[in-house]
Amino acid sequence: MAIIECIPNVSEGRRPDLVQSFVRTVRGISGVRLLDASSDPSHNRSVLTLAGEAAPLKAAVLALFAKATGSIDLREHRGEHPRLGAVDVVPFVPIEGVAMAECVALARETAAEVATRFEVPVFLYEEAATQPTRRNLEDIRRGEFEGLAAKMTSPEWAPDFGPARPHPTAGASVIGARMPLIAYNINLATDRLDVAKKIASAIRHSSGGFRFVKAIGIALEDRQIVQVSINLTNFEKTPIHRVLEAVRREAERYGVAVLESEIIGLTPEAALISAAEHYLQLERFSPNQILENRLRQAE
Amino acid sequence: MAIIECIPNVSEGRRPDLVQSFVRTVRGISGVRLLDASSDPSHNRSVLTLAGEAAPLKAAVLALFAKATGSIDLREHRGEHPRLGAVDVVPFVPIEGVAMAECVALARETAAEVATRFEVPVFLYEEAATQPTRRNLEDIRRGEFEGLAAKMTSPEWAPDFGPARPHPTAGASVIGARMPLIAYNINLATDRLDVAKKIASAIRHSSGGFRFVKAIGIALEDRQIVQVSINLTNFEKTPIHRVLEAVRREAERYGVAVLESEIIGLTPEAALISAAEHYLQLERFSPNQILENRLRQAE
Repeated sequence: MAIIECIPNVSEGRRPDLVQSFVRTVRGISGVRLLDASSDPSHNRSVLTLAGEAAPLKAAVLALFAKATGSIDLREHRGEHPRLGAVDVVPFVPIEGVAMAECVALARETAAEVATRFEVPVFLYEEAATQPTRRNLEDIRRGEFEGLAAKMTSPEWAPDFGPARPHPTAGASVIGARMPLIAYNINLATDRLDVAKKIASAIRHSSGGFRFVKAIGIALEDRQIVQVSINLTNFEKTPIHRVLEAVRREAERYGVAVLESEIIGLTPEAALISAAEHYLQLERFSPNQILENRLRQAE
Repeated sequence: MAIIECIPNVSEGRRPDLVQSFVRTVRGISGVRLLDASSDPSHNRSVLTLAGEAAPLKAAVLALFAKATGSIDLREHRGEHPRLGAVDVVPFVPIEGVAMAECVALARETAAEVATRFEVPVFLYEEAATQPTRRNLEDIRRGEFEGLAAKMTSPEWAPDFGPARPHPTAGASVIGARMPLIAYNINLATDRLDVAKKIASAIRHSSGGFRFVKAIGIALEDRQIVQVSINLTNFEKTPIHRVLEAVRREAERYGVAVLESEIIGLTPEAALISAAEHYLQLERFSPNQILENRLRQAE
């Protein structure tokens, strides 16, 4: 049985009723499971995690676009997390019994239909990207909603589908396929935004850091602390604990402690087991030693 | 469906063929799943982890006794781990759909039949104990095989079932019921046995340490290092990481580092997730954020 994961990120995190309406919308599609819904008022963003087969997921994404495009106005949207569209990013992730190529095809079909139905320009990213310069979400999103109209006057930034200019209230959307990612935030016990930005710069691949890390430094105004907001794009090769410890050490240089960390949405179990193995200095450990795993295996 | 776990500890860890014959014996019983088999040549001990319903498990334990009683001679047995019998300890653990009381009853029935069939004295322990002085395995096992004949001349140490003296080659066995336990060894980068013994003493409940910790210090002769060999009897209340960090700190006092650690047999997933949460300083994390768990839940 094919399991695809789909993780729409929408630019709404401060109106719980609206977010709940999005949740009800996707839940209403037969064959779609809602695995998680997380909202962040600082980011003013919500992340839904869906699972299912290709056709129901496409239907769910289209239904979500229908709801979000009508109810989120980016001209009024303020939040700590960068955004390009009302429905900002929609990745499809192969989980079980399905190859990346199928997820790429699904991303392209969904993107085409979104563009046609809602007159929103769509850019394909990661494994679905049509050009190397469009693989990275950050490169597509740079300038955010406010800079999009100017950006799209350049032929370099013609969308993969849809009109040659932003939707006036819904901006543009980024749709694609990729491997599982862990959204991981590390909060620092300081209000110095420059510290978070410097550390983000130190750990992210683009500016010399770990290969499979994307990161930005942001302020959490309501709590008067700062955050290194991270995407771990290959947790097997660049594990969560290595990144945390690098952040911890970098923060020490500024006399700043790590206050706490947080996983947003879902994580593969292996990422946490790997962290436990690292910190406990476990040798010769096999996931088969996990009781629940062994009970589930046929004997 | 009832799932009971049964973890026979046998006094053989240096003859792999013999251990394999034990494995084949228990596997041959219909309705019994072998979840794990671990041997330790230093300890000269093996731990089998079985799961199933009450009747098949009892049959497996009796079959194991038949094989082990004939092939292990404790008069010849040398090893780092304390032992009383060829089949040394057999706990039954409720895992799912079964209450402790059922496991206690199963322990008592199994003990009675072992004693009758193999003429091995049996002591009931933990939740199955008939007296408070017999709850602790360590109190029953103190003196080991070599001291058993003398110990059993005292009326205080009349067995719960079977003859009033040790079996000449198979000693005595301890059978009971308890909550899940984690067998955890921490190896220290030193050959100083006194350090391991002092640290074991520091962390175990009986001498002033953590409430749900049993520990001994032993030498791993083949590797010329020492080990704190631990049973975590309630990993939720006394978690694995707290114990490791206490050992680490105590070892520092002697200028000794923690070399590595090891889990023997099975561990509940929650113990490792809890360790990951602790070291990663994760806040607001729910096991529902584990992808594999969410996929298994009905939506």
